Amino acid sequence: MEKEFIDSIEAFVADSVKIPDQKVALVTSGGTCVPLEKHAVRYLENFSTGRRGALSVEQFLTRGYKVIFLYRDGSCFPYLTQMKNNQEKFLKNLIVGRNGRTTIDDHNFTKLIEEYKKHESSLLALKFMTLQEYLRKLRLVCLALQPLHKRAAVYLAAAVSDFYVPDDKLPLHKIQSSESLALTLERTPKMLGHVAQQWAFNAFVVSFKLETDENILISKCRLALSNYGHQVVVGNLLETRYNNVIIVTSSSVVNVNATSENIEIKLISQLYLMHEQFMTS
Amino acid sequence: MEKEFIDSIEAFVADSVKIPDQKVALVTSGGTCVPLEKHAVRYLENFSTGRRGALSVEQFLTRGYKVIFLYRDGSCFPYLTQMKNNQEKFLKNLIVGRNGRTTIDDHNFTKLIEEYKKHESSLLALKFMTLQEYLRKLRLVCLALQPLHKRAAVYLAAAVSDFYVPDDKLPLHKIQSSESLALTLERTPKMLGHVAQQWAFNAFVVSFKLETDENILISKCRLALSNYGHQVVVGNLLETRYNNVIIVTSSSVVNVNATSENIEIKLISQLYLMHEQFMTS
Repeated sequence: MEKEFIDSIEAFVADSVKIPDQKVALVTSGGTCVPLEKHAVRYLENFSTGRRGALSVEQFLTRGYKVIFLYRDGSCFPYLTQMKNNQEKFLKNLIVGRNGRTTIDDHNFTKLIEEYKKHESSLLALKFMTLQEYLRKLRLVCLALQPLHKRAAVYLAAAVSDFYVPDDKLPLHKIQSSESLALTLERTPKMLGHVAQQWAFNAFVVSFKLETDENILISKCRLALSNYGHQVVVGNLLETRYNNVIIVTSSSVVNVNATSENIEIKLISQLYLMHEQFMTS
Repeated sequence: MEKEFIDSIEAFVADSVKIPDQKVALVTSGGTCVPLEKHAVRYLENFSTGRRGALSVEQFLTRGYKVIFLYRDGSCFPYLTQMKNNQEKFLKNLIVGRNGRTTIDDHNFTKLIEEYKKHESSLLALKFMTLQEYLRKLRLVCLALQPLHKRAAVYLAAAVSDFYVPDDKLPLHKIQSSESLALTLERTPKMLGHVAQQWAFNAFVVSFKLETDENILISKCRLALSNYGHQVVVGNLLETRYNNVIIVTSSSVVNVNATSENIEIKLISQLYLMHEQFMTS
């Protein structure tokens, strides 16, 4: 499994290295889950539909990147986010033809699928479920990207749990109901430092900061930059995340707003320019 | 919102009441989420893809039931479970035709969609996210089913959290990372008693018991039956749940096994007979 996983990434990167100026983005997406039992029925989850990551992949592909998409199993997939949000509507738009084939009566969907078909071979999709699986795969992909040097972008949109229960403290079986449940979770080692300084030390690294309190957002973004020394932090607030984000670098704060269209179009367009600049610096 | 929700259910039930011997199943599906913050970023989740519920809906519809499907937003939807498990494969099977329409090149999928089209008008799908939303909607649907008397079946396949954090104990904002996180969750009031004895007192009620320890499964099923006085508990173990379930009633334990086909076919076929018997008793 592990060897196959590494082989598929290395082959994808090797193909990209050969193409002059070919950029590759690693996009992580969706929430990690933290098991609370060894045979786990209950999990601590970070909320994420994976919409941001999936839509960002579409934009990276449109701009000529090859993309490694490391996503939570079952979360949004590029070109299918609309469908996931409304499965029933999707079903209602299906038509079974006389030829025994199913047709989708939705012009916008067809346009998306045309886009997908153009970029299909530029997308490598990899799944994770738990926090541990995510961290293990993140490391492997980052290491594999090193030969690309500055042409690699690492875009960390996954919602990673800050807390976990260490293996040796997990109960074996489903916790039985009693009057109350006391959980003690330990802090997840901060991986961003490893990513920025070791695993993907030569890449363009973009991390995310999701907060609910507007007053601490910018300072938290700046703190992350100074702690980990990477290139960009994208900050967003839970309530307004589909319409507003801020792009924070060591020297600037850019506000990005979108109402009628997906904000990922503007966001990736800005990051594209920053990555270009980073490559020539 | 609330009124629209109730109106849609009552209309659906009223239509069904008029049809002689029309049975209606409420199928709950997917896991509830329990927010750990008021503006919540983190949740306690019960693991569930919603596969069992979605496949069971297909079987109830095939057997002539009308179905109210109360499901966790984003979890498996009937006739689309295959697609959800492998979105990338689904995308790869899509063909954009010269007429600008998208066609799905998958014979099995087309057969499923034909089934859906047959039963489309017999399915009312309703979503939930949090534990509280689930309980509120469960109650409303159960109450609306009462005019159907014994022709109603309540099939509680949703994975409901046994624990929650009461509103007044929720922190307002995202819990900030510190060395460790101590959480105290309180026990969720057991709703099955309300369902079986009040909300759906005259219906055929089937609950589920998921355990990881084989040694306590049957006794837990029997305990639930004697505590709540409903008709059936379906017991399953996390590791073998797709191949083995037990159907426990006050007088019998039936083992159901399936390997090559979905176990929901056999399970609903057994429950169909038990519901028939219940209606004539």
